[in-house]
Amino acid sequence: MSKLVVRAVSMSLDGFMAGAHQSLENPMGEGGMALHAWAFGTRTFQKMFGNAGGATEGLDEEFAAKSFENNGATIMGRNMFGPVRDGWGDESWKGWWGEEPPFHHPVFVLTHHARKPLVMKGGTTFHFVTEGIAAARQRALEAAGGKDVRIGGGAETIRQYLKAGLVDELHLVQAPILLGKGERIFEGLDALGGQYRCESFSASKAVVHYRLVKQ
Amino acid sequence: MSKLVVRAVSMSLDGFMAGAHQSLENPMGEGGMALHAWAFGTRTFQKMFGNAGGATEGLDEEFAAKSFENNGATIMGRNMFGPVRDGWGDESWKGWWGEEPPFHHPVFVLTHHARKPLVMKGGTTFHFVTEGIAAARQRALEAAGGKDVRIGGGAETIRQYLKAGLVDELHLVQAPILLGKGERIFEGLDALGGQYRCESFSASKAVVHYRLVKQ
Repeated sequence: MSKLVVRAVSMSLDGFMAGAHQSLENPMGEGGMALHAWAFGTRTFQKMFGNAGGATEGLDEEFAAKSFENNGATIMGRNMFGPVRDGWGDESWKGWWGEEPPFHHPVFVLTHHARKPLVMKGGTTFHFVTEGIAAARQRALEAAGGKDVRIGGGAETIRQYLKAGLVDELHLVQAPILLGKGERIFEGLDALGGQYRCESFSASKAVVHYRLVKQ
Repeated sequence: MSKLVVRAVSMSLDGFMAGAHQSLENPMGEGGMALHAWAFGTRTFQKMFGNAGGATEGLDEEFAAKSFENNGATIMGRNMFGPVRDGWGDESWKGWWGEEPPFHHPVFVLTHHARKPLVMKGGTTFHFVTEGIAAARQRALEAAGGKDVRIGGGAETIRQYLKAGLVDELHLVQAPILLGKGERIFEGLDALGGQYRCESFSASKAVVHYRLVKQ
């Protein structure tokens, strides 16, 4: 059965999934890039960047590879799709990922501004959903063809789905660093207590991986 | 050299070191007791409760035992000492721990209300410090006779010392549960980014232990 999943979301020991002062030049915020160092070193991510290197085994590679498996559709927030605010203007913005984005499946972008679907190379089509998170979930599940729907981010989008009780599984990654400030994933989610069971957790040399399942 | 240390402080995956609605009947707050389950199972803690059981080895026992080693003095907040608010009234409150508290060294209680030192059995004397956290640190370091000074808690006291940049080492324990709400240890500590280096982290079957050292 299709599930709504959060995968490979990294946060600091003090709970931030991005540092302070996120900007176009520094989308992870101050110090935020360090949260993702575990992923950058894996073969899966190196391959995505067009490189041949990266570790081919180990816990981090295992989880990195898994984060791309069995995803039939992705949901993301407007800000993750791009820096354009308010209306879509001349509609020239086509995402951060170039002509052939690494999704290879339908991507549903949450927005307040309607826009026609955007067909890219390699199987990715961006759909713009103005009817809210429940509608996006419904459409993504239908489009996923029995596979899972991954919530790509950012933090605000993940929080909205958690708040609505719609996330079936989470793979969280904790980096052993303190950022002091930034954007939390777990903020204003008072009802979360007891909703998830930790199925497993394990430490690599770089981070700790947690797998949470809705009970 | 004496250090100011935080040891065996447990928090949830969403960053809470106590659940919501802490009270006299439920001092850890809703769901908060689960954060400490790892410790309760160890021989060190069982012994403290007067029991013979508990695991005698393993990572959790190792860290539990270490949390009591080389402590020459303890600092704690007023609320950790007891539920009495405002003035000390008839001074009949002598802490939660009975006639022979498990500290066996000088304990410095942060308070706004002066009170004479309270000499207990077994080497514990409670000193009441009205001059603030820096004064308490100074007095505790002097009293510790070259050993470390442990900040016993609660969250507010730990935060104050972190904010002032006075904590030399932290041993944090992360339990793989979500509480949703409660009291955070890392809140309002904007300047913390980059102040600590994670010396090691390791997962037991129950929790993940992190050792942080000021850089």
